[in-house]
Amino acid sequence: MANIQDFINKLDELKFDDMYMNDFFLTWEKTFDELQATWTVADALRYLRENNISTKVFDSGLGISLFRDNSTRTRFSFASACNLLGLEVQDLDEGKSQVAHGETVRETANMISFMADVIGIRDDMYIGKGNTYMHEVADSVAQGYKDGILEQRPTLVNLQCDIDHPTQIMADALHCIHEMGGLENMKGKKIAMTWAYSPSYGKPLSVPQGAIGLFTRLGCDVVLAHPEGYEVMPEVEEIARKQAEESGGSFTKTNNMAEAFKDADIVYPKSWAPFAAMEKRTNLYAEGDSDEIKALEKELLAQNAEHKDWCCTEELMKTTKDGKALYLHCLPADINDVSCKDGEVEASVFDRYRDPLYKEASYKPYIIAAMILLEKFKNPQKVLAELEKRGQKRIFEA
Amino acid sequence: MANIQDFINKLDELKFDDMYMNDFFLTWEKTFDELQATWTVADALRYLRENNISTKVFDSGLGISLFRDNSTRTRFSFASACNLLGLEVQDLDEGKSQVAHGETVRETANMISFMADVIGIRDDMYIGKGNTYMHEVADSVAQGYKDGILEQRPTLVNLQCDIDHPTQIMADALHCIHEMGGLENMKGKKIAMTWAYSPSYGKPLSVPQGAIGLFTRLGCDVVLAHPEGYEVMPEVEEIARKQAEESGGSFTKTNNMAEAFKDADIVYPKSWAPFAAMEKRTNLYAEGDSDEIKALEKELLAQNAEHKDWCCTEELMKTTKDGKALYLHCLPADINDVSCKDGEVEASVFDRYRDPLYKEASYKPYIIAAMILLEKFKNPQKVLAELEKRGQKRIFEA
Amino acid sequence: MANIQDFINKLDELKFDDMYMNDFFLTWEKTFDELQATWTVADALRYLRENNISTKVFDSGLGISLFRDNSTRTRFSFASACNLLGLEVQDLDEGKSQVAHGETVRETANMISFMADVIGIRDDMYIGKGNTYMHEVADSVAQGYKDGILEQRPTLVNLQCDIDHPTQIMADALHCIHEMGGLENMKGKKIAMTWAYSPSYGKPLSVPQGAIGLFTRLGCDVVLAHPEGYEVMPEVEEIARKQAEESGGSFTKTNNMAEAFKDADIVYPKSWAPFAAMEKRTNLYAEGDSDEIKALEKELLAQNAEHKDWCCTEELMKTTKDGKALYLHCLPADINDVSCKDGEVEASVFDRYRDPLYKEASYKPYIIAAMILLEKFKNPQKVLAELEKRGQKRIFEA
Repeated sequence: MANIQDFINKLDELKFDDMYMNDFFLTWEKTFDELQATWTVADALRYLRENNISTKVFDSGLGISLFRDNSTRTRFSFASACNLLGLEVQDLDEGKSQVAHGETVRETANMISFMADVIGIRDDMYIGKGNTYMHEVADSVAQGYKDGILEQRPTLVNLQCDIDHPTQIMADALHCIHEMGGLENMKGKKIAMTWAYSPSYGKPLSVPQGAIGLFTRLGCDVVLAHPEGYEVMPEVEEIARKQAEESGGSFTKTNNMAEAFKDADIVYPKSWAPFAAMEKRTNLYAEGDSDEIKALEKELLAQNAEHKDWCCTEELMKTTKDGKALYLHCLPADINDVSCKDGEVEASVFDRYRDPLYKEASYKPYIIAAMILLEKFKNPQKVLAELEKRGQKRIFEA
Repeated sequence: MANIQDFINKLDELKFDDMYMNDFFLTWEKTFDELQATWTVADALRYLRENNISTKVFDSGLGISLFRDNSTRTRFSFASACNLLGLEVQDLDEGKSQVAHGETVRETANMISFMADVIGIRDDMYIGKGNTYMHEVADSVAQGYKDGILEQRPTLVNLQCDIDHPTQIMADALHCIHEMGGLENMKGKKIAMTWAYSPSYGKPLSVPQGAIGLFTRLGCDVVLAHPEGYEVMPEVEEIARKQAEESGGSFTKTNNMAEAFKDADIVYPKSWAPFAAMEKRTNLYAEGDSDEIKALEKELLAQNAEHKDWCCTEELMKTTKDGKALYLHCLPADINDVSCKDGEVEASVFDRYRDPLYKEASYKPYIIAAMILLEKFKNPQKVLAELEKRGQKRIFEA
Repeated sequence: MANIQDFINKLDELKFDDMYMNDFFLTWEKTFDELQATWTVADALRYLRENNISTKVFDSGLGISLFRDNSTRTRFSFASACNLLGLEVQDLDEGKSQVAHGETVRETANMISFMADVIGIRDDMYIGKGNTYMHEVADSVAQGYKDGILEQRPTLVNLQCDIDHPTQIMADALHCIHEMGGLENMKGKKIAMTWAYSPSYGKPLSVPQGAIGLFTRLGCDVVLAHPEGYEVMPEVEEIARKQAEESGGSFTKTNNMAEAFKDADIVYPKSWAPFAAMEKRTNLYAEGDSDEIKALEKELLAQNAEHKDWCCTEELMKTTKDGKALYLHCLPADINDVSCKDGEVEASVFDRYRDPLYKEASYKPYIIAAMILLEKFKNPQKVLAELEKRGQKRIFEA
């Protein structure tokens, strides 16, 4: 777009009042207007930064990050988003903190939030737990604000849970939108969200679930492909089906990777663990049964190994639309003969898409910042206008 | 209060010049005017923040945190306080740093302080060590400043030592002052600082010592209650006695929890380790005698277990003033049938006081920020006036 | 200097255009004008800070620190430098991140750099690896910028590699320049870079190599002294030789510590590991041969122990110029009877130089900040002038 007013005009067409003073858990809990507002604000923030205009809207304030799993990308994306808006990140690292020592969620959530404007949580390891935990935290601080304990309501950004990975998939979608030349061009595009082989085990379901839960709203023809036994959560499939109907797209399933790739405009081949196995593992962990856990891991790796042919090859890529489907991945990918012997994708395919893959990832900090901005400001249009008017340089100009 | 001028007027009545370019170790080393200045500045900073006025008084500068023990609350309180004033926190984590590799305190203290405006230390584990270590650090950097090595004098905030926990207890007191309707209303109030049973072992003495060391200055009738054998440091008791005389309050001791609770306005039931045992343990650690340490732990846990009846029950709470004493705790508490089978407090009591407990904790970041402000600025009245005049918004208003 | 214009005038005499949008790897890859520009900007930034003028030139933006080794000083120096300029530090801690899980350098470098203005790396452990790794990172993000993935080009500061330790040695040199009363006074000064005994093993070669690689450019008479078998990298010696010729200084080698100290103006006695042994160790680590590694360590410690007489004693110090050579060390030093029984320096010598040693270290944050400023701004003269004109106070003045 040519100037900030274009983004403001776009926002003026949308209804997203409910995002203010609210949290962001799952994309399908948001209206389509709200998703569009998020993409629009993300693009607007990027526009301002590219024009060296500071988007610091906080002059002090904390962004709390709570990771229950190792993470580089998401950690840096959240830190970048907070920094972009003027918030300082404080990590609540369970190793360093007393969280591990049996405190209740409610107490800890309030104790760390006296100066917190936003809390970002990643908790994707156990089925049925991560999203629930996030709601506990969000409810706790919302109550703390209501009770006058907290002077501001810290809003939550889901940085990946057991059900959805909204910051990733919203970034993926924004990448597609730009590559396809606009949201309206997504209609009728065929998207293959397919399982792929990985020698590692237990990768989260949040990306495939997030993908079918979001792209079905854009009028796309979404195909979910995986070997038998690698089903995702049935509730999410149900949502995808319903949404596809509403948007004029479609949602189909297949156990045939080639079928999914055939004439696809966009492919997203990625490994994940079977939902049923993840659920079983969650229960075994709860019971602390380490022998059974080891047995399950062994079994799952053996099961994976039966599907080494599920790989994004040059041959398969040739069958996509003009042989040039847009290849997506949340990274890091398991690349044949690079990160492992057999993996999710052939090295030559991956290499050809390196730049688009990095661009795909580059949207994430802006998506997170947009979620925060929409949660914290009633009138983001005015914020954007005033930021440009203020004209504070991000890098000193001399 | 209605506006910033009220806080400034209050400060004008007090003498606190010596706080400037000084450190904060123990509350009883400060004059009563200085303590009042701290509470007043804390309230003023909170007033400004509640009115969306930025209190950033540093435009770059570091706050160093040095924790020799795990911590969530204090870590976040210090980070919040620094952020509120515009300082960026840098953690000196012994795991990450070379401190563990035999460097002298003097050297390390200077090496990390080239851009440090404040250093916050928590070191409460070993009797006779924590406070001493803090003085070493403070002396080192004061000397470094005098010698022209450091361009500013980093001042120190004691975030908990073996003797006192001034940021906690000053926050506790400010909470009481507000709940009782003003400092003058604290006179004659009965405060029960009592031991309580915990299944864990070796909790620091800094809270009970801090409590009797501070509340005796407010004209309160302070009762210290604990089973025989759970004595605190005799020097601190002596200070409490002397201060009570001067303030027109009283300081008494009892081995009877019920006696302490009877007609109390405020109760603070909390576990701690016997001073003598902590001293013994410190020596055993110094000698590296792990067999003796284990034997001591076992002995102390057995000793604790004899006093499971020291619990803050509904029955006991009924005996307090109108059955409605203000219940204090520094958190986290050991709650019966919640965090442990038998603990410091019955779940129903704790639940009823949850909001006040969280409010109590909410003062800590402001207390720390007030200590920093008074250490770094000669004329805090003018700082407060200018901050309001500057009117920089904490959250962008659009 | 009396005012900012003096620094600007000095910069006007120098040519350093190539530093803009570039990285800082090794001092000998920079022109002498570029080194002078670095010292001048460092002094100018210090001048501004001493006059309470904020030097924040970034209004948001990240400084990424990547340490492959424990570090206190360098970590804090980098954090201080970033903070001074308005960048927020994000540590890429391999423990916390997925770097350890087999990602390619190129991918990770881009993934963490979406909002990064500078990347500081310390990687000094393995011969032939550290500097190479830094180039990989710098090339990756330069390419990412060129490809439009990154909106800014994150420039690199070498915080210590296997070859050079430019931030340390540039700070050391600036300290010497000030102590000797100006750069022109460095000509003809005798500098003894000598090995010294340490009971520890495997200290990096980057300091002695950095010293002979830098001081030979200042017209100094540089003597490198070490026991036989403690040779540094021959390539660096060759560079030192060539540079000495060009600058009108000299570069000589000896196996006699006393000879090096005789009439020296500056002494830098410090332990390091033999280059050949470090190279061997690097290969053994690559092969994962832990038995051979242990054998090598034992052998090297035994070899060290044959040279306990290589110590900076009072006796040796007496033989230096007027008995008052400037004693340098990058700290921490191995001090006789303080940090170890036998070490690099006698306690009385070290104690006498404590203040100068701390001052030496105090230049490092400014050197790093100067490197960043010169990498990010085309016209640093104008930046300095505008910063003074802006007159934003670092500490609020009221």
